[in-house]
Amino acid sequence: MAPDAAGKGILLKVDFVADAFRAEVKDGLADPHRTLTLVGILATNASPSRFYADFTRKQCEGLGVKFILKEVGSAVKQNEGEEARSDGDGVEEVIIEANEDDNVDGIMVYYPIFGGQQDHYLQQIVSPLKDVEGLHSKFHYNMYHNIRFITPASLASTIPSPKVTQPIIDDIPPPGTVKSIIPCTPLGVVKCLEYIGVYNKILTYGDRAYGKTVTVINRSEVVGRPLAALLANDGARVFSADIDTIQEYTKRPRSSNPTSARQYLPRHTSHLCMLSLEECLAVSDVVISAVPSASYKVKTEWLKEGCVCVNVAADKNFEKDVRDKASIYIPAVGKVTILMLLRNLLRLSHYNDVSTPSGSEGIIPSQ
Amino acid sequence: MAPDAAGKGILLKVDFVADAFRAEVKDGLADPHRTLTLVGILATNASPSRFYADFTRKQCEGLGVKFILKEVGSAVKQNEGEEARSDGDGVEEVIIEANEDDNVDGIMVYYPIFGGQQDHYLQQIVSPLKDVEGLHSKFHYNMYHNIRFITPASLASTIPSPKVTQPIIDDIPPPGTVKSIIPCTPLGVVKCLEYIGVYNKILTYGDRAYGKTVTVINRSEVVGRPLAALLANDGARVFSADIDTIQEYTKRPRSSNPTSARQYLPRHTSHLCMLSLEECLAVSDVVISAVPSASYKVKTEWLKEGCVCVNVAADKNFEKDVRDKASIYIPAVGKVTILMLLRNLLRLSHYNDVSTPSGSEGIIPSQ
Repeated sequence: MAPDAAGKGILLKVDFVADAFRAEVKDGLADPHRTLTLVGILATNASPSRFYADFTRKQCEGLGVKFILKEVGSAVKQNEGEEARSDGDGVEEVIIEANEDDNVDGIMVYYPIFGGQQDHYLQQIVSPLKDVEGLHSKFHYNMYHNIRFITPASLASTIPSPKVTQPIIDDIPPPGTVKSIIPCTPLGVVKCLEYIGVYNKILTYGDRAYGKTVTVINRSEVVGRPLAALLANDGARVFSADIDTIQEYTKRPRSSNPTSARQYLPRHTSHLCMLSLEECLAVSDVVISAVPSASYKVKTEWLKEGCVCVNVAADKNFEKDVRDKASIYIPAVGKVTILMLLRNLLRLSHYNDVSTPSGSEGIIPSQ
Repeated sequence: MAPDAAGKGILLKVDFVADAFRAEVKDGLADPHRTLTLVGILATNASPSRFYADFTRKQCEGLGVKFILKEVGSAVKQNEGEEARSDGDGVEEVIIEANEDDNVDGIMVYYPIFGGQQDHYLQQIVSPLKDVEGLHSKFHYNMYHNIRFITPASLASTIPSPKVTQPIIDDIPPPGTVKSIIPCTPLGVVKCLEYIGVYNKILTYGDRAYGKTVTVINRSEVVGRPLAALLANDGARVFSADIDTIQEYTKRPRSSNPTSARQYLPRHTSHLCMLSLEECLAVSDVVISAVPSASYKVKTEWLKEGCVCVNVAADKNFEKDVRDKASIYIPAVGKVTILMLLRNLLRLSHYNDVSTPSGSEGIIPSQ
């Protein structure tokens, strides 16, 4: 996978990364426990959603997870003479059924459905105990606040987990706690960045992106902002760019006092940044774009020579010549995302076992 | 308040409605309990937000509620030479502080701050135990599902309250339960409609808007959709219109089977409606508009003669000649909204008392 003869950067498909996690999840499922069940909810006739549902089924079947697709609204085939069903008709009801069904371990919903606020409402309706996508605001809260370890019981509580007061330095959950669930798309990106060495394993856990400057383009609550926060909590200096503003996320103090320069906060803070996107890209080691638009392109000429570029959007956000500047270009992360989702399924099934009275602490899997 | 000599409809200021609730809240506060504290959080320099904060303070002071305004981000006056603070800087931290402060009974945040999804995230961060605005998805869930009575303990749980299986027929909470918190803007509108007789008190509680057709323009999660659901759960036939589609909300079965025509579901269902806005308005007894745009206007010529029009937006959504068609026109509901908020404050303070071990069931106020 060296740069090709023309001196272009590497085009990296993430199958290797996915394979490693597939093995991990498979091992976890081999625990002679019971077959896990994932319910997918398709509520529109949008082909990307249908495609993703088929992809989920294939991944589940390959791992021995039972996948049940619930089709509602415009996803249901309409017979002649039948009244038209619209996008999202009945979606909330099937979410609630799946929440209440003890035979269901995880729920994933194919968005967008209504778009905007109403989709965000649905994300809050999926029980955190079954939210394999990690879209409940509880999980975003934990992630923004760098709360990595939670009690299983906290999944059922609206009271936030306690603040982190000390920097995280290892990944072993303290007794009685388990790892929080991280939204699977941002987590998938982080796993790709770990694989290609943007995260430096020689550094202390919890600060392995230290020294790296990253630009994340798009600040949605589903991908852009969680991803920027995750990277900053892992030590990176992150520029979070949206259409209007650029914010800088960092856990390093911004004062230039040399005695404090190597200390850092337990979680990132954000502040408005006066640099332009061009200026941010000029100093960025990693550029991640997640703009849901076919016409949006990151200008190759603005990239730093040798940077890493990751396209998270369904559309291609980078220009065709991106590898003229980038040392590594990852065109898609979906194959890793789905495994993060299945790993979340496995974890949540264990957490639910221990948080119910019949469970025992002993079966929390190694984290 | 009869139509004027020119035969125009009544222009109704809602001060009367507000006065009635002010008296109710004042009585509730007279309970020799302790002074309640409301924290307002202002995180931008937008003048409508500042205006609303001043208005909140005035209302609180008039009722003996302690109001503390926390200013963060661009709401903080900037001294010369200081770095610019941006909209929303530090807002999450003050929400968390207020959540954790036992001396704070209620929290209200002046939106918009970041706009869109990030504001929705903040709405989920405010503890449901202190969410006087009723913006937590828990309260929306209860309202959409016509769950009117909850246990105080459920405020702290991510597990949804049980489904309603029977139509609600009175407003007395069953033993051990209290009234759920309803988002204060939609509730304010309902209280105005009750006052002007759109709700018919002769009908059974829970179905007093039966026979009325209402169009609600705008389907945001903050006002339009909750309001449409609330009215449909109270028996109205509601057209919920947004820029793309019109949905019909009703709890009546849609079949024309005459034996079932007078029975209804415990909560509304929604389905796509093929009527145009003009067709909806032609049959609507009540038209409520909440479009955040100065240029949007409901066409007077489309209104049904003698209808009731309610403007919920900050901008005027009705044309100047609205009273040529409307029998009653309510230009603003803000004065009632704030009292719903203060009533929510009073209720939540009682619910918190009973849900903590030191409280006793005896002090749940009459509902």
